[in-house]
Amino acid sequence: MKKGLFITFEGPEGGGKTTQVQRFIQKLRDAGHQVTQTREPGGTEISEKIRGILLDPDHHAMDHRTEMLLYAASRAQHVSQVIRPALEQGNIVVCDRFIDASIAYQGYGLGISVEDIIRINAMATENIAPDLTYLLDLPVELGMQRIGEKRGHNEDLQKVGLDRIESKAYAYHQKVRNGFLKIAEEQSERVVVIDATKDVETIEAAIWEHFRANHS
Amino acid sequence: MKKGLFITFEGPEGGGKTTQVQRFIQKLRDAGHQVTQTREPGGTEISEKIRGILLDPDHHAMDHRTEMLLYAASRAQHVSQVIRPALEQGNIVVCDRFIDASIAYQGYGLGISVEDIIRINAMATENIAPDLTYLLDLPVELGMQRIGEKRGHNEDLQKVGLDRIESKAYAYHQKVRNGFLKIAEEQSERVVVIDATKDVETIEAAIWEHFRANHS
Repeated sequence: MKKGLFITFEGPEGGGKTTQVQRFIQKLRDAGHQVTQTREPGGTEISEKIRGILLDPDHHAMDHRTEMLLYAASRAQHVSQVIRPALEQGNIVVCDRFIDASIAYQGYGLGISVEDIIRINAMATENIAPDLTYLLDLPVELGMQRIGEKRGHNEDLQKVGLDRIESKAYAYHQKVRNGFLKIAEEQSERVVVIDATKDVETIEAAIWEHFRANHS
Repeated sequence: MKKGLFITFEGPEGGGKTTQVQRFIQKLRDAGHQVTQTREPGGTEISEKIRGILLDPDHHAMDHRTEMLLYAASRAQHVSQVIRPALEQGNIVVCDRFIDASIAYQGYGLGISVEDIIRINAMATENIAPDLTYLLDLPVELGMQRIGEKRGHNEDLQKVGLDRIESKAYAYHQKVRNGFLKIAEEQSERVVVIDATKDVETIEAAIWEHFRANHS
């Protein structure tokens, strides 16, 4: 039986998720919470191997359905081996990406039926779903620019290590962002939209303020 | 649009599928047919990588849902890259294992909902299904014995290379066999049960006789 709290971070590329997850977890630990930190795709040995297939830039020929099902397979393993046991122990589980990412990227982005994605993932996770999601939202241009800066602005982005997901076209990222915002609108009781155009400290404060006001 | 003929070979371990697929394809080619030979899990570069994860004997911790979804992911890639294009060209596609294997092994064998498996695979394949299936049926004892002989009877089977699937318990293989027979009973217009206790030449003749009588 689930006892803990399941929190996910979502949003387009370049929103600073990784940094914010780190800082949020540090604050939770400082406040005395037992925290399990994890990420998707990945989080277990088997899931990390699946992650390797998903993010390999050589896999241009990957079918959209294959991609969606690999994410679901990785998630099934991740839930059964890491997330569910940690929640059963009463931990706060903080996960970098979860089902919303599949809906935004493979559903709204690639055009796979959102209904199929929801149904398949409900099966994969045995209906484990986040209690709370922070959506770090920002315009696609700014996100792409930040990724470029991080990787060395004067280089060819392909050469400095853009993975298969990031190198997809701008229009796709626009659909993904809109998909995330649609999810937030439809599930406003769970998804909190955070303005990720701000600086790191402002974003960090906004997330912590929301969390303290609602979950302490 | 599908124009060719899609034929699969199914059945428990030790039924001689690999040999029979080879011989059947040789006969088809001798008779002047354009044949595409393939197998599951695998058949494409991406699917072969997924196969590597599925059959790795170290992956004892693999969740049953993960396993089922990995097979479906591999199949989606295999259909879009190999099977559908070959059928559209009018070829006969002969595939060693397909959806029936997921239903028998993950459904009847491991206890995952057969309805979920059918629904997820219909999505994965965009409803591509075999026109004809040869089910090479034999008792579990005989199948296990044949695998043991092939690998060197006097050795510890684990040490001489039984993969993760083959090393599962006898009871599981019994459920799998019964699952295959249930599929054949429910879809007798598609699935032809072949007695795989016979010698190689007798099985070969039975398959070819059926094929010539029905599809020439």
